[in-house]
Amino acid sequence: MENGHAKNRVAVIGSGNWGSVASRLIASNTAKLPSFHDEVRMWVFEEILPTGKKLSESINQANENCKYLPGIKLGANVIADPDLENAVKDANMLVFVTPHQFVEDICKKLAGKLRPGTEAISLIKGMEIAVEKFSEATIGYKKDKEVATRWAKLFTTPYFLVSVVEDIEGVELCGTLKNVVAIAAGLVDGLDMGNNTKAAIMRIGLREMRAFSKLLSPTVRDNTFFESCGVADLITTCLGGRNRRVAEAFARNGGKRSFDELEAEMLHGQKLQGVSTAKEVYEVLTYRGWQELFPLLSTVHEICIGQLPPTSIVEYSEHTPNLSIISGSNAYY
Amino acid sequence: MENGHAKNRVAVIGSGNWGSVASRLIASNTAKLPSFHDEVRMWVFEEILPTGKKLSESINQANENCKYLPGIKLGANVIADPDLENAVKDANMLVFVTPHQFVEDICKKLAGKLRPGTEAISLIKGMEIAVEKFSEATIGYKKDKEVATRWAKLFTTPYFLVSVVEDIEGVELCGTLKNVVAIAAGLVDGLDMGNNTKAAIMRIGLREMRAFSKLLSPTVRDNTFFESCGVADLITTCLGGRNRRVAEAFARNGGKRSFDELEAEMLHGQKLQGVSTAKEVYEVLTYRGWQELFPLLSTVHEICIGQLPPTSIVEYSEHTPNLSIISGSNAYY
Repeated sequence: MENGHAKNRVAVIGSGNWGSVASRLIASNTAKLPSFHDEVRMWVFEEILPTGKKLSESINQANENCKYLPGIKLGANVIADPDLENAVKDANMLVFVTPHQFVEDICKKLAGKLRPGTEAISLIKGMEIAVEKFSEATIGYKKDKEVATRWAKLFTTPYFLVSVVEDIEGVELCGTLKNVVAIAAGLVDGLDMGNNTKAAIMRIGLREMRAFSKLLSPTVRDNTFFESCGVADLITTCLGGRNRRVAEAFARNGGKRSFDELEAEMLHGQKLQGVSTAKEVYEVLTYRGWQELFPLLSTVHEICIGQLPPTSIVEYSEHTPNLSIISGSNAYY
Repeated sequence: MENGHAKNRVAVIGSGNWGSVASRLIASNTAKLPSFHDEVRMWVFEEILPTGKKLSESINQANENCKYLPGIKLGANVIADPDLENAVKDANMLVFVTPHQFVEDICKKLAGKLRPGTEAISLIKGMEIAVEKFSEATIGYKKDKEVATRWAKLFTTPYFLVSVVEDIEGVELCGTLKNVVAIAAGLVDGLDMGNNTKAAIMRIGLREMRAFSKLLSPTVRDNTFFESCGVADLITTCLGGRNRRVAEAFARNGGKRSFDELEAEMLHGQKLQGVSTAKEVYEVLTYRGWQELFPLLSTVHEICIGQLPPTSIVEYSEHTPNLSIISGSNAYY
């Protein structure tokens, strides 16, 4: 896309709840911003509604997704399109909002059909912005700030602040590692240890996230942890979130019922990312000999596999590493 | 004190709940650490108990403060002493744990009575460590890391991690400014806006705390905000804490009952620091022309004085400053 020469054109791939929310938000911006075409094509995985009507037709008639986002107007410039190829053919900016298991198949179908220079972004989690609750997000980028800023402009609204950071690895590692810390926070909840302890655990978790990310990828920047993908997402995940919730139940059961069992019972098919991420992190720590440096991350895994009791999450006396080597801090412990 | 030549000797000034907790914790360490005398003198503001016995005698007989910390042994090396001058005469490390309004008077009494080179520390808030819940704290210092580390050693236990940072201003500003952010968090609670919004507000608050501290005092370090005095205390204060609680009530009343009124009703004489700190910060912002740079800090004050409605706490659309000037971040908004 010759940014600056022609207008940007956006297509949204997906029309479930979050796809509809994203289309609505984006369309409110493309209608205002001169560098974007007003129209936002939203690809709809076609369904026949109980009324006998096609979902895509229903959306275009009511300007509302009566099945996945009822009661909220999408904006006149959102056009539902059940034909994938047609939906994307004029677009140079694609927004993926399908369940992740469909992405590979969709990409195969799109191969060779896109305009040269087309960019894509993936929105992998839902947010409470359909009802315009204040929220925020971070976009990571590599070198090309202009591209990142254009994407940020597309998403920013008065109730949804989007920032960009030149640190893809940092943004991704924050998104992954926070789920391990949420397990730790959930254990503290299940042990009824109160807010002071929980805050301490979240802080130590953030510290280990930062140190681990920097060891893995030296380009990771401190600032990233002050962005919404860092401290804000960590707080959200440790206050709500399913990793926290299942870990709380695990601790309340004294570790006697496994995470697998609780997950199956509590999440109805959804998966806990924190447990599998803790395992992967542990493998890296063991392989590189860093275990002693990351007591919280290590302990979470050892609790998850039943090697340590849930109460170990607050016992760091035997291994209190000096992370100052990594973080440049003067921390005493 | 000739550290390394003679043993350090600790006196605790105060024997209320938190004074007793501190004495117990410190005594468990002085008993183990070779660089400290075992004995910890605890100055007791003498009282006659309902039994007719003196409080200090009761403490020394039962090794327990039956009035302010019943049911918990202080450790055999804690000696209660009602004579202030006698309690401190051999000490070179003083720990102040009295209510703050007594400090000035006590200091006047101590003037000229202390050994040369005596150091003092003040513990201004209580923590949940009497029952050995996991918690942490940060000690700020200027230049002399050895002194700071000695103090940290005195307080560190397996359930109480103490770190030191060479950043007195940063530690103090964190402690003050977090109360303003807690007001913002409480308003979000009162507006029932959910965890995503609350986390976003806490994150923006942390960002403004950091930027404001660095503008006020250029020696303030980023690392300080990753210590317990930064992100962990902020989380604790925004989850519990009286600033949060009264601000929640303020928002639930639609701003129609003043903070003064709610404070009198809810806190029974305790004072809200957040409201007065917000006012002081606002004066600095106005005086230096920085108001536009700190929408959250400014808005909290304007809401407190009734100039803006509580809902303004999530409306930053009209003033979204680029704090990257200050923080070096690439934030878009």
